[in-house]
Amino acid sequence: MPRRKPEMFPTPADAEAAFYDAFERCDLAAMMAVWAEDDDVVCVHPQGPRLVGFEAVREGWTQVFASGMALRIKTVDAHLYQAPTIAVHSVVEMLSSPGEQGTSPPVSATNVYILTENGWRITMHHASPTVELAAPVREPPPEPHTLH
Amino acid sequence: MPRRKPEMFPTPADAEAAFYDAFERCDLAAMMAVWAEDDDVVCVHPQGPRLVGFEAVREGWTQVFASGMALRIKTVDAHLYQAPTIAVHSVVEMLSSPGEQGTSPPVSATNVYILTENGWRITMHHASPTVELAAPVREPPPEPHTLH
Repeated sequence: MPRRKPEMFPTPADAEAAFYDAFERCDLAAMMAVWAEDDDVVCVHPQGPRLVGFEAVREGWTQVFASGMALRIKTVDAHLYQAPTIAVHSVVEMLSSPGEQGTSPPVSATNVYILTENGWRITMHHASPTVELAAPVREPPPEPHTLH
Repeated sequence: MPRRKPEMFPTPADAEAAFYDAFERCDLAAMMAVWAEDDDVVCVHPQGPRLVGFEAVREGWTQVFASGMALRIKTVDAHLYQAPTIAVHSVVEMLSSPGEQGTSPPVSATNVYILTENGWRITMHHASPTVELAAPVREPPPEPHTLH
């Protein structure tokens, strides 16, 4: 099967829109067309391990998409840092499944884009739940809920 | 009390070293001297909410440091993106408490530094456990442990 031709994303916002569009449609080829093709790309899914390198990231999305569950993803409360060749977007992902009751907990995501020879590509995606699901593992605050 | 004079960090690596040094020593003033003083700074502690803005970030670290627990933090497996005014470091934090048996689960961290008038400062810190602690909240893979 011929490799899908990389698409061009003239701005970080274009790359981000394509990223979430592919995510919503569980479209692996479209998703990987947004990623920079190098060994330094990093992807952390919520409560998952850190995946490093294009092939590991592809395998991660393959597993994510294997459920075939369609999601609607809206990003809100963006905080952006933009330089000529790197852009960093901190967003909150609001997730819902069409036809299902209720909503998932929001997800905090840090997305890093770089300008490549083929336009802007995503090079890091770090996502984690915005809610406390268990005891903190790094540093125990004196009262578990005081950050809320 | 006079505000602590901001220190200069001539490189992102200097800022990162100061960040983890302050973290190990539970030194709030030293920690906040590394942060960019603006409303767009973002800090996500493991399994915590997204904190936005200098004061919210300060409050978060105040709570983290309230335990007074000394930690040793070693960062490994760094993947770096560097531009003239922005640097992004993806690292794994290896944590231990002196005198205590065992180690905490490693933490994935994405650290973003920007060049300010006062040298390099951290503007985003996103940390999450590298291990699965509960059911994924965003997208259920078919087998929960296949990413490991």
